[in-house]
Amino acid sequence: MTQMASWARSAARLIDVATGRAPADMVVRGGRWVNVHTREILPGTDVAIAAGRFAAVAADLSYAIGPETTVIEADGRYMLPGLCDGHMHVESGMVTVTEFARAVIPHGTTSMFIDPHEIANVLGLPGVRLMHDEALTLPVNVYVQVPSCVPSAPGLETPGASIEPEDVAEAMGWPGIIGLGEMMNFPGVVAGDPKMLAEMAHTMDAGKTVGGHYAAFDLGRNFLGYVAGGPADDHEGTRLEDAVARARLGMRPMLRLGSAWYDVAAQIKAITELGLDPRSFILCTDDSHSGTLVNDGHVDRVVRHAIAQGCPPVIAIQMATLNTAQHFGLEREIGSITPGRRADLVISSDLVALPIDLVVARGRVLAENGRLTADVPAYAYPDAVKRTVKLGRRMTADAFDIKAPSGRNSVTARVIGVIENQAPTKALTATLPVEDGLAVGDPAEDVCQIALVERHKGTGGVVNAFVKGFGYVKPCAIASTVAHDSHHMIVVGTSKADMAQAANRLAEIGGGVVVISEGKELALVEMPIAGLMSDERAEIVAAKAERVVKAMEACGCRLNNAYMQHSLLALVVIPELRISDMGLIDVTTFSPVDLFLTD
Amino acid sequence: MTQMASWARSAARLIDVATGRAPADMVVRGGRWVNVHTREILPGTDVAIAAGRFAAVAADLSYAIGPETTVIEADGRYMLPGLCDGHMHVESGMVTVTEFARAVIPHGTTSMFIDPHEIANVLGLPGVRLMHDEALTLPVNVYVQVPSCVPSAPGLETPGASIEPEDVAEAMGWPGIIGLGEMMNFPGVVAGDPKMLAEMAHTMDAGKTVGGHYAAFDLGRNFLGYVAGGPADDHEGTRLEDAVARARLGMRPMLRLGSAWYDVAAQIKAITELGLDPRSFILCTDDSHSGTLVNDGHVDRVVRHAIAQGCPPVIAIQMATLNTAQHFGLEREIGSITPGRRADLVISSDLVALPIDLVVARGRVLAENGRLTADVPAYAYPDAVKRTVKLGRRMTADAFDIKAPSGRNSVTARVIGVIENQAPTKALTATLPVEDGLAVGDPAEDVCQIALVERHKGTGGVVNAFVKGFGYVKPCAIASTVAHDSHHMIVVGTSKADMAQAANRLAEIGGGVVVISEGKELALVEMPIAGLMSDERAEIVAAKAERVVKAMEACGCRLNNAYMQHSLLALVVIPELRISDMGLIDVTTFSPVDLFLTD
Repeated sequence: MTQMASWARSAARLIDVATGRAPADMVVRGGRWVNVHTREILPGTDVAIAAGRFAAVAADLSYAIGPETTVIEADGRYMLPGLCDGHMHVESGMVTVTEFARAVIPHGTTSMFIDPHEIANVLGLPGVRLMHDEALTLPVNVYVQVPSCVPSAPGLETPGASIEPEDVAEAMGWPGIIGLGEMMNFPGVVAGDPKMLAEMAHTMDAGKTVGGHYAAFDLGRNFLGYVAGGPADDHEGTRLEDAVARARLGMRPMLRLGSAWYDVAAQIKAITELGLDPRSFILCTDDSHSGTLVNDGHVDRVVRHAIAQGCPPVIAIQMATLNTAQHFGLEREIGSITPGRRADLVISSDLVALPIDLVVARGRVLAENGRLTADVPAYAYPDAVKRTVKLGRRMTADAFDIKAPSGRNSVTARVIGVIENQAPTKALTATLPVEDGLAVGDPAEDVCQIALVERHKGTGGVVNAFVKGFGYVKPCAIASTVAHDSHHMIVVGTSKADMAQAANRLAEIGGGVVVISEGKELALVEMPIAGLMSDERAEIVAAKAERVVKAMEACGCRLNNAYMQHSLLALVVIPELRISDMGLIDVTTFSPVDLFLTD
Repeated sequence: MTQMASWARSAARLIDVATGRAPADMVVRGGRWVNVHTREILPGTDVAIAAGRFAAVAADLSYAIGPETTVIEADGRYMLPGLCDGHMHVESGMVTVTEFARAVIPHGTTSMFIDPHEIANVLGLPGVRLMHDEALTLPVNVYVQVPSCVPSAPGLETPGASIEPEDVAEAMGWPGIIGLGEMMNFPGVVAGDPKMLAEMAHTMDAGKTVGGHYAAFDLGRNFLGYVAGGPADDHEGTRLEDAVARARLGMRPMLRLGSAWYDVAAQIKAITELGLDPRSFILCTDDSHSGTLVNDGHVDRVVRHAIAQGCPPVIAIQMATLNTAQHFGLEREIGSITPGRRADLVISSDLVALPIDLVVARGRVLAENGRLTADVPAYAYPDAVKRTVKLGRRMTADAFDIKAPSGRNSVTARVIGVIENQAPTKALTATLPVEDGLAVGDPAEDVCQIALVERHKGTGGVVNAFVKGFGYVKPCAIASTVAHDSHHMIVVGTSKADMAQAANRLAEIGGGVVVISEGKELALVEMPIAGLMSDERAEIVAAKAERVVKAMEACGCRLNNAYMQHSLLALVVIPELRISDMGLIDVTTFSPVDLFLTD
């Protein structure tokens, strides 16, 4: 980011190279120039690079080749601008920014716009600063958005930290900050909530971009109110009409293909079928799991998918390069192979299959044929960041006892109902047995226990409740310190002893996810950084995460994306019923409710 | 400009209106929404306006109409964003910024990007500040560029003032400054001239836009060097290949239709024939005379012309609205009818003839059916600005005596050859008679005298020479204090007495243009502001300017655009032969030359 000399500071050298007075650092020769400004493909093009920036692009730049110049033969292959991810969360990959970058650079990603929303919930602005500072060390461009909604649901949960408008104002002065992270509190914006308006005002005052998040189907007055408030983009659209409505009102639609989001196919019809001007449309991933990065790709996967939907390749590439750059006011810095811009370039032999043959960022070759070739050293996080799981006590099985009202043989309890492949839950009720004065799960009905274990302040607090839908049949417990959005610890289990062991295990290693069955640890992903991120390689994390999936299956779980479902059960902004450190929360009325129904 | 509350400061009210909690200030009802984001035309659209900004755009906003709301019936007519002129010089209209605005608002212009290059040559940065401050008082958006090349030709002329890199840095902090004015010193950029690079660096450091001006046909290394230096746009292209080369390299082509520039037709083929992505293309006027504004129009004329060349209307409108806004980083402020933006809107009943029925700017109706309806008060310039014509003496006929080398009956002199309809001149020679020891013009060969009268410092300096091509047959003199780019006084004449009278007349009134024949004043345009601008209405100035043309014709001149040719004869950056306060200048070698050839 800032460690790179500006165009202005590099201009004298770029001019010297362009005019032939000095040799280039690198010349890429004889490629097909994917020109995202004109939407053309121009064969037989040379590209000269100096000072980490493009110096010239023309049919013949052999005059810029000196004895020290690195020459790369494009041999008629396509030269694309480095790919940009318009909105994403590094934490979803369970790895550090550095490891995320290592994983995605071979896929052609050279610019990312990240919203470190998860770490903000654990560590507040200092956590954002850590990821921001890490981003500045990288050989690719990682622009950071300041999380806007920490906590996500004030009054319904206690996060590890919060972000206030003054924090937003302060962060706007940091070198790597590009704007405000997704404004999820859309009811707040529509209602004119002064805190939300103040955060957006600080962002706009700084000339930066307010990210949007309007997760509702209503395109009437509420939608108009949200747009009038200032968010400049939105990746929460899912339907064709969502994309069209946003584009028409000047709020850029970000079409999302994440590990579990599939929102491109429906919305890209705005271009392929309705023929709208594609300049407003941007591609993004939002959330990518390590396994997706390792096995399927990153922005290249989204571009490939967009092309498979019938989008002309150069338009799809514009949506992941120039359009993104223009949105964030960076078109003279990234997003095209044109003079002065950072020399971020991908070579590919095919615009449909889109193999990523070579990746150059800031004038350096970073990856070849899917393998990182550059040295990208790990970033050392301070130790304090690795000690964020504070339970305040050693858990024992009785911490998960659920006392029934006295004198009852059975109880009617509220139960969180997991819906496969959907983020919302159902608010169910179930009649549950009482044993020794304690309400317990009902294996026959797939109802087991869930606990929200406070882990930020070491209060020792445990909120117990019931959940239905995971299918666990063996004695087991699954614990995770990734527990959106306030990231306490969620423990789900059929065995209280295993639940205690799982909770203690995560406390011991500083967080992560663990599967315990009958006292045996079946799988573990250590995530010591804020309890959210591993400091290991993405491929190792992906392998460990795969073992978690297998272990959950071994315990009887047949749910698709079961771990993601697990980690979302405390997300007290999405209906209907969730758990937080403050109790069971009805997310249709946004109020705490009792576990037991009085009947 | 800054006197308007920002979107952020207006957001609460805009949300209230959009959601129906408060009435709008104005609702435009039932129009065809020209959507420049999606490139669509959407019939049956309502627009709600509050706090000078668009609050909502939707099919039915009747809920936003309260008892105090102004309702405008669009009745199925087109609603376009207010038009933007991407690059222009107010001084070319010979009127103040206010009078220029008054003239163009009825044509639908609501945003102008002006480069006060001329006043800078007379008054320096304080002159720029004056026009900047005047711009801030207007009900439309006038963004100011800091002139980059003052003087245009250092060492070859003495302007009234100069602008240095420190001046550029200072001005970047002013509220209405949008960037650096056209970087005309393209040889300097290509050569890496530190002063030019410093000016561009100050601009880029401030996050603002460097205007370009590459007035050459060479699209090879020099062009590449210029692009690498940083200019972000260019309005000097004339050929199709010029537009294409600029767009491909990420330097936005500005297609120009001025009073005397016709550069749209050839270049718009990049869109209409080659099918390039039009997002990079911008329309501008550069120089419009008052007569053009009064009789033909402004940006509306350019849009109309573009459509007449086969450009689809909505694309032509994008080129004068959203494209311009995006170029200058203003897309969230102007350039589209979408929430949050300044409520600048034009109603037109036809997208080909493009009549301008109604003009709204910042939520106020300013013009209807071609007539300004709003009160736009004149701006009071300080008196000192009206006393810039300092000759240092009262001119007499003998000030224009040209002494021949002693003992000669005739001389061979260099003569500036005017070429009709072209800016370059020819370096001619002529054998001229000598009378009483003085070289004189040759009416039979259409050679008459030209004088450059120093007028900034009152040195009393007069440089005399000869010019061919005006066709004056009567005893006469034409004097002008508009004399690009250093704006001394140019006097052309066949009578020295008339020349003296003309010079004295302009000194007396503070500048302008005057035609004298045999002691009689045939025509006069007073331009007391810096000797460049009238403080009268554009229609009055246009009428007076028309009288100047007639008067020149009455003296025998048959040249097209004769006054413009007159005012360009000191432009010592365009070949081949010019006059400056430092003498006769050979603009092929950029050096002074003697008037007489030694033969």
